Amino acid sequence: MKISVIRVPAASPNDTASLQQQIKEGTIVPSQVIAVLGKTEGNGCVNDFTRGYAVQSLRSYFAGLIGGEAADRISFIMSGGTEGVLSPHFTVISRSEEAADSGSDGRRALTAGVAHTRPFLPEELGRSAQIKEVSEAVRRAMAEARIEAASDVHFVQIKCPLLTDADMADARMRGADVAVDDTYKSMGYSRGASALGAAVALGELREEEVSDEDVCQSWDKFSDVASTSAGSELDYCEVIVFGNSVHASGDLYMNHGVMNDAIDAKPLLAMLADNPGAEVVQVLAKAEADPTGIIRGRRHTMLNDSDINHTRHARAAVGAVLASIVGDPMIYVSGGAEHQGPAGGGPVAVIFRRAGA
Amino acid sequence: MKISVIRVPAASPNDTASLQQQIKEGTIVPSQVIAVLGKTEGNGCVNDFTRGYAVQSLRSYFAGLIGGEAADRISFIMSGGTEGVLSPHFTVISRSEEAADSGSDGRRALTAGVAHTRPFLPEELGRSAQIKEVSEAVRRAMAEARIEAASDVHFVQIKCPLLTDADMADARMRGADVAVDDTYKSMGYSRGASALGAAVALGELREEEVSDEDVCQSWDKFSDVASTSAGSELDYCEVIVFGNSVHASGDLYMNHGVMNDAIDAKPLLAMLADNPGAEVVQVLAKAEADPTGIIRGRRHTMLNDSDINHTRHARAAVGAVLASIVGDPMIYVSGGAEHQGPAGGGPVAVIFRRAGA
Amino acid sequence: MKISVIRVPAASPNDTASLQQQIKEGTIVPSQVIAVLGKTEGNGCVNDFTRGYAVQSLRSYFAGLIGGEAADRISFIMSGGTEGVLSPHFTVISRSEEAADSGSDGRRALTAGVAHTRPFLPEELGRSAQIKEVSEAVRRAMAEARIEAASDVHFVQIKCPLLTDADMADARMRGADVAVDDTYKSMGYSRGASALGAAVALGELREEEVSDEDVCQSWDKFSDVASTSAGSELDYCEVIVFGNSVHASGDLYMNHGVMNDAIDAKPLLAMLADNPGAEVVQVLAKAEADPTGIIRGRRHTMLNDSDINHTRHARAAVGAVLASIVGDPMIYVSGGAEHQGPAGGGPVAVIFRRAGA
Amino acid sequence: MKISVIRVPAASPNDTASLQQQIKEGTIVPSQVIAVLGKTEGNGCVNDFTRGYAVQSLRSYFAGLIGGEAADRISFIMSGGTEGVLSPHFTVISRSEEAADSGSDGRRALTAGVAHTRPFLPEELGRSAQIKEVSEAVRRAMAEARIEAASDVHFVQIKCPLLTDADMADARMRGADVAVDDTYKSMGYSRGASALGAAVALGELREEEVSDEDVCQSWDKFSDVASTSAGSELDYCEVIVFGNSVHASGDLYMNHGVMNDAIDAKPLLAMLADNPGAEVVQVLAKAEADPTGIIRGRRHTMLNDSDINHTRHARAAVGAVLASIVGDPMIYVSGGAEHQGPAGGGPVAVIFRRAGA
Repeated sequence: MKISVIRVPAASPNDTASLQQQIKEGTIVPSQVIAVLGKTEGNGCVNDFTRGYAVQSLRSYFAGLIGGEAADRISFIMSGGTEGVLSPHFTVISRSEEAADSGSDGRRALTAGVAHTRPFLPEELGRSAQIKEVSEAVRRAMAEARIEAASDVHFVQIKCPLLTDADMADARMRGADVAVDDTYKSMGYSRGASALGAAVALGELREEEVSDEDVCQSWDKFSDVASTSAGSELDYCEVIVFGNSVHASGDLYMNHGVMNDAIDAKPLLAMLADNPGAEVVQVLAKAEADPTGIIRGRRHTMLNDSDINHTRHARAAVGAVLASIVGDPMIYVSGGAEHQGPAGGGPVAVIFRRAGA
Repeated sequence: MKISVIRVPAASPNDTASLQQQIKEGTIVPSQVIAVLGKTEGNGCVNDFTRGYAVQSLRSYFAGLIGGEAADRISFIMSGGTEGVLSPHFTVISRSEEAADSGSDGRRALTAGVAHTRPFLPEELGRSAQIKEVSEAVRRAMAEARIEAASDVHFVQIKCPLLTDADMADARMRGADVAVDDTYKSMGYSRGASALGAAVALGELREEEVSDEDVCQSWDKFSDVASTSAGSELDYCEVIVFGNSVHASGDLYMNHGVMNDAIDAKPLLAMLADNPGAEVVQVLAKAEADPTGIIRGRRHTMLNDSDINHTRHARAAVGAVLASIVGDPMIYVSGGAEHQGPAGGGPVAVIFRRAGA
Repeated sequence: MKISVIRVPAASPNDTASLQQQIKEGTIVPSQVIAVLGKTEGNGCVNDFTRGYAVQSLRSYFAGLIGGEAADRISFIMSGGTEGVLSPHFTVISRSEEAADSGSDGRRALTAGVAHTRPFLPEELGRSAQIKEVSEAVRRAMAEARIEAASDVHFVQIKCPLLTDADMADARMRGADVAVDDTYKSMGYSRGASALGAAVALGELREEEVSDEDVCQSWDKFSDVASTSAGSELDYCEVIVFGNSVHASGDLYMNHGVMNDAIDAKPLLAMLADNPGAEVVQVLAKAEADPTGIIRGRRHTMLNDSDINHTRHARAAVGAVLASIVGDPMIYVSGGAEHQGPAGGGPVAVIFRRAGA
Repeated sequence: MKISVIRVPAASPNDTASLQQQIKEGTIVPSQVIAVLGKTEGNGCVNDFTRGYAVQSLRSYFAGLIGGEAADRISFIMSGGTEGVLSPHFTVISRSEEAADSGSDGRRALTAGVAHTRPFLPEELGRSAQIKEVSEAVRRAMAEARIEAASDVHFVQIKCPLLTDADMADARMRGADVAVDDTYKSMGYSRGASALGAAVALGELREEEVSDEDVCQSWDKFSDVASTSAGSELDYCEVIVFGNSVHASGDLYMNHGVMNDAIDAKPLLAMLADNPGAEVVQVLAKAEADPTGIIRGRRHTMLNDSDINHTRHARAAVGAVLASIVGDPMIYVSGGAEHQGPAGGGPVAVIFRRAGA
């Protein structure tokens, strides 16, 4: 098994021209694509339709190449918001079965696996039902990726639903109550429960340690590698697990660190220092405004800004810090890091190409 | 002559509590204050009233201490916009006449001088009249600061007017035409002409090299040390020149560099490397969205975002990059860098306290 | 007792030029001013500093005329947000003691009274403590206005606090829990509790009918005449009661109606039809986005817009509907109508000048 | 020839469920559809991708029913922005050839015709080339609609391109200069030139009366019936002409008026009074912020708001005024009325169903 990771720029959410070029040149083989992770240029909040537009465009493009059923098996995960220097793009993940193992040296290479949960009822969102289902999906994705140890998992990307007005009305009609009755806030609860699910799957938290009450409350409970993103375009969770495996071959591999706050450059600098000569293929990170309103002892204004949502501010800040370090703004930085790394911080992962490869 | 620089946090545009505390403790002497440079938490664009609110609050506070006339001699320069991690604060610049020279070692210390232009007619804004008047004011401020060589100037902060609807109507009534008939755009023209004025004063450009047509057009003409900020609260330009002088004493001194784009960390990293052990007292920088729509070969979306002005994006990005390097978000990063450093980039200056001081 | 109501335009939050003109002309006598009700051009949400800026400017202006202590007795109530056609202005309410009663015909004329509550602890906000204190303040203001029957009250304007991050931290430190742990949402709770307090004072609801649980939940409990506005510039509630009284004289009087939704023109049209020939001196109204997401059977998008807060949309809509009817955009339309009229609707009141006066 | 007009709500830009329902019920026959006029819930400005998303969704849906070639002949015109009470929806225009004339009474019924121009070069946009091409397309659409007199034209909807950064770079490379070098502003120039083209076609202006210099300058030159909308999803202009014709049959017919400003209710009220008993099938109107910054003698703040674009304010205001009058927020109100009605005002048209029909 071998994973390839190719980034293509997007001139708009429906732009597939660069993708087409790569396919024409043979660097991307449509039938091998398992996931597309995108940054689109919407607001990343409730009414961000650039995510759905990109998914519709990509799915339709792939369906024309490999048929609708095969296209439906590709995981399209779009994160809205390219504030500041961030540049809209798609990261195309492919998996081929060539070169079945890594040979005699036993070294681990990048692997990836996908899975999804069942659809959720509105009242299950942001609660233990979601935590449990996500933890099981993460384990299935790990198995598919042939990752044996949780320590070999370096990024778990999860796309999860949110509560629309219609969902809340539906729950009310059935006499069920929802975790939070505000669409924008429901994004945080869904992201948070998904992240806690990943933490449980990876042994960062024990299942009995997390309950409904912890979601968006117990900020000391989190995963170091979860990255979750909410959107209205699905009612279940889609999971992609990235990591290293001896069963994978190729020149790519992955590492991760944890940013303690939005301007914590150390984890990424350390990874670069620890991997001299290696090429940075992609950086994946989460961003959030510190919920205390304070960063490095200074007041920030992200949470009190009624003109720009705090997730937008946070993406602009973290995106610029990381882009500055790697010298490339076409990286994946997603907002809203509830239970993804410590409060105010978040995971940062790097896909490297082995030096000299 | 000795310059002191003290930063005080602001909990809101009208918050003088931390300033009061410093005055009470004697670290700031009201009668010695020559300028207050602030970052306030508005949008930094046309309808940002946090700047005027802060000026009104500060002036009224100082007037209570030293009288209205003395308070009117203090230069209050507010830059709106604390996007991302940036933290609202005031930088209080004081000047005392103690310790008249730097002694026998001839070393240069931080100095500062202020000056202002006459009021401008609407039709003069963003044109050569403004360039000329500003260049003369910069020279007067340099003289006041006792800076002898242009190379000793490290930051020229200029607060300049903009064209309101009323200004444009007034010009029309008198049959005069204005440089640009859009309030938001006029901010760029005024900032640009002010920066070109500084460039002329400092010999970066010759006076005959710049004309009306260059403003917001000839991006290759710029100053490495100008930082200009437009607002509706004045109709003339206020200038503060910062630099080093052998006639100044004290432990503070200044350096500057030029960022080539919004994520160019090198100038600040180089200054820190060149000044080992020195304490960073304040960072002053300009930010802008690259006008080509491209940064490091990647498309950015700042210029096409109709929900958030590009200056807001740029401040969030540059602010985070610099705050990450110095580990402090309470720095001065101002948006809109027309003719202030190269297109897409901008000046960055550091006030240091001598190591071991 | 005689009440005068004069509107003056504001070119910016700190503009007192038109007010000065009226004072110079004698139409406004500074010592008789009891309240200034303003519309300022901020976002009307958490980080709207135009309200505080206007209050500081007005208080300082009046202090220069009548002294600081007298200026402090004037009630300055600013509502942020002049979206759409709405025009920034101040409505100056004065009270003189001349012409003590309405003479032999017993007709009622406009009256107004002011009162304020004690400061609130963070944990009291949006709860029954606030409801109770406000209801008592409304009764005191009615007494001051010499209004005898609740049916003679036509508008109760209340300015109330919100919960800042600091307030919430303070409550946490004391082990107290707050009604809602989100600054923006706390504005709604504070407005809602204030409105319920007015309803209790006016007998629209019985005191035992309302409890903590009703605030921002039981939308069928509301006042027909309350108009409440939250801001960070105070920690208590300020109340102005407007109505008619036989003890008041003059040509002004008041009426009110209740809009059932944001486009319900009927109440205002009916008041105009019922008062032929009377001059409209001012319109006062509340606006909100229907919390069901539906208006007249159609989906609206105000609640799901992450770029513009729903209160801003609602003010733009209601302001335009009412301005269109009276042919004047310089009216008072304030956002966030929790428990002020039915859900999605709100009170609308008119100050008339008697026909032929 | 008979025109049918059916409105269907849209739960999101890609929602075709209500459309499907109408098709299933037979009220809409896919092969007869000539145009879909939509309101989508984006910002209506540069980065509004809801328009393209809706067009892609609708075209794909119709292609599945009638084939790609037939679907490509349908004119999809989307206007972004449903601020305030406005409700996202599609107005589906169909044309059937049944009942070829209006019978013996010679009465005129609603008709519609579509046409499009050739693609434009960037340097042609907002200039006389666009004016000329549009005027010819309007004449072709009139002919197709069998409208004989310009006075029988009641609404001319035109979708036109804008200048993207790429367009401007392309022009620069070829040494051509564009009318305006700002994407957002180019929308106004393109809308303006299109409207002037309609005015020429309808004899409201003579061809020799309009030149490059008039576009977005000579506000006294305008069309009473043009409604133009700019978007990045096309490089030519699409035109739909609506009017009445003796060659059309059916119960629908049209009227129009001109609003003098954003709160001018008179034209719509007059049309309703003149057509007693007739059902309002759809209202179509244009909205803009008065470019003088003044409405009915009062200052408005739409043009100076750097947080919300003025077109968004204007749609919220005009949408609410008209929705209030007809009691329905699911109407077509589009922003940016350059040369469409007088400055600050705009056309308003009504499609009626004959009383008793």
